[in-house]
Amino acid sequence: MYTHKVQYYETDKMGITHHSNYIRWMEEARIDFLETHGWNYARLEESGVASPVVSVSCKYKKPTTFADTVDIDVCIKDFTDVFLTVGYKMYKGDVLVCEAESVHCFMNTQGRVIRISREQPEFAAFLESAKHAD
Amino acid sequence: MYTHKVQYYETDKMGITHHSNYIRWMEEARIDFLETHGWNYARLEESGVASPVVSVSCKYKKPTTFADTVDIDVCIKDFTDVFLTVGYKMYKGDVLVCEAESVHCFMNTQGRVIRISREQPEFAAFLESAKHAD
Amino acid sequence: MYTHKVQYYETDKMGITHHSNYIRWMEEARIDFLETHGWNYARLEESGVASPVVSVSCKYKKPTTFADTVDIDVCIKDFTDVFLTVGYKMYKGDVLVCEAESVHCFMNTQGRVIRISREQPEFAAFLESAKHAD
Amino acid sequence: MYTHKVQYYETDKMGITHHSNYIRWMEEARIDFLETHGWNYARLEESGVASPVVSVSCKYKKPTTFADTVDIDVCIKDFTDVFLTVGYKMYKGDVLVCEAESVHCFMNTQGRVIRISREQPEFAAFLESAKHAD
Repeated sequence: MYTHKVQYYETDKMGITHHSNYIRWMEEARIDFLETHGWNYARLEESGVASPVVSVSCKYKKPTTFADTVDIDVCIKDFTDVFLTVGYKMYKGDVLVCEAESVHCFMNTQGRVIRISREQPEFAAFLESAKHAD
Repeated sequence: MYTHKVQYYETDKMGITHHSNYIRWMEEARIDFLETHGWNYARLEESGVASPVVSVSCKYKKPTTFADTVDIDVCIKDFTDVFLTVGYKMYKGDVLVCEAESVHCFMNTQGRVIRISREQPEFAAFLESAKHAD
Repeated sequence: MYTHKVQYYETDKMGITHHSNYIRWMEEARIDFLETHGWNYARLEESGVASPVVSVSCKYKKPTTFADTVDIDVCIKDFTDVFLTVGYKMYKGDVLVCEAESVHCFMNTQGRVIRISREQPEFAAFLESAKHAD
Repeated sequence: MYTHKVQYYETDKMGITHHSNYIRWMEEARIDFLETHGWNYARLEESGVASPVVSVSCKYKKPTTFADTVDIDVCIKDFTDVFLTVGYKMYKGDVLVCEAESVHCFMNTQGRVIRISREQPEFAAFLESAKHAD
């Protein structure tokens, strides 16, 4: 479980967290999830693997605001060697405030899409096993 | 057609526009679309109507980067008096770089969801007619 | 000591943290400093005291980048009842990466500048004592 | 004169533009100033010259908020071949809302500080002449 504390600069004049920030928290939580499971994203990138975002979707259930603590639960929803789907559930206390999903592909340093099982078989194995975890 | 020039601070270390910024450009383009059609968002808000974002989805087709000019085409995809669905197509020259959608509800200053046809009938009429335009 | 982990979305195409983010980390560290000393900023604001930023200055000594851990040391440099000057030293490990300062005034909910010793004497006493601490 | 329209996502819960955004507008205005004078920053960077920010300072005179139009006047305050000082005056209508300064050095792609008159003599000549302009 990743925790993000809402910053003052993340609020807008409606008095609540601006919706664009949840997209950034997804990235924070995703990178933390990988690191927690032994996959340091900075090192992955240095080894020549980037994972650009192909799509995002985000459902805002309840607003949050400055100083709120948001707990983010990350799971691997799908992994097909070419595409990775990551799911996110964000909670303020017991209340689900946001549910989201991001889809990623994998690219080498030349910007070519790669099959992760060929370039980073251990990472592919981790994603495969994480998909079945629950 | 709304135009956004990609700023240096919108790029990330991959050398491209960070994906979270497109969510912000959707807001820029949506507000510009309303203003172009005679609906100033600042004034709408002062009159007691806010339109928080219920959900967003965004498909990243091609990367963009610093100094790129991105043209954003906005349309009203649906309007049901309670929910408004806005569509976005973003182009770099002739190339579609991003396709996105946002869903909004309407709220009064007490944070209560409202039927826009009751509170702002002229605005509702505009959204209704814009839905059928193409 | 407040700790900020540099996020991917805070980097730019130069491969380093975009300089505007340090201004945001100053806010994070300032609010954390106050909270650590028993002054919850959200509660202060609810009690009718805001402290807008009058000026900032920031010297970038060394770059930082994604996944770096930045430790931020905050101190009260000056307090004159009308103006508060906060100092910041940011470190990556032992290396000073940034040195900064922000000046604040105090405002009530009507947007009028106030003397904090009159409106919040205990908070003023804290700032006065923190000024002499080292 | 560069013009920035304040975006909704640039406001905070105080109802005004978050102060960190002015630092970003300085970058927008600086890059626009260079381009207006024939120096495309993207091309400069491709030719191997970056100009990282060494320091910024910013005095907030009056708040701005969503939908405000901010006009930014840029000038070259100083140029010493190693350091470039850029000045900014930001106006909302006739009212000065912000006065700021940024200092830059010049770096090659290896991250070494360079004398711009040696690497890009024409650019150095432009900065020299702009310094004396008013």
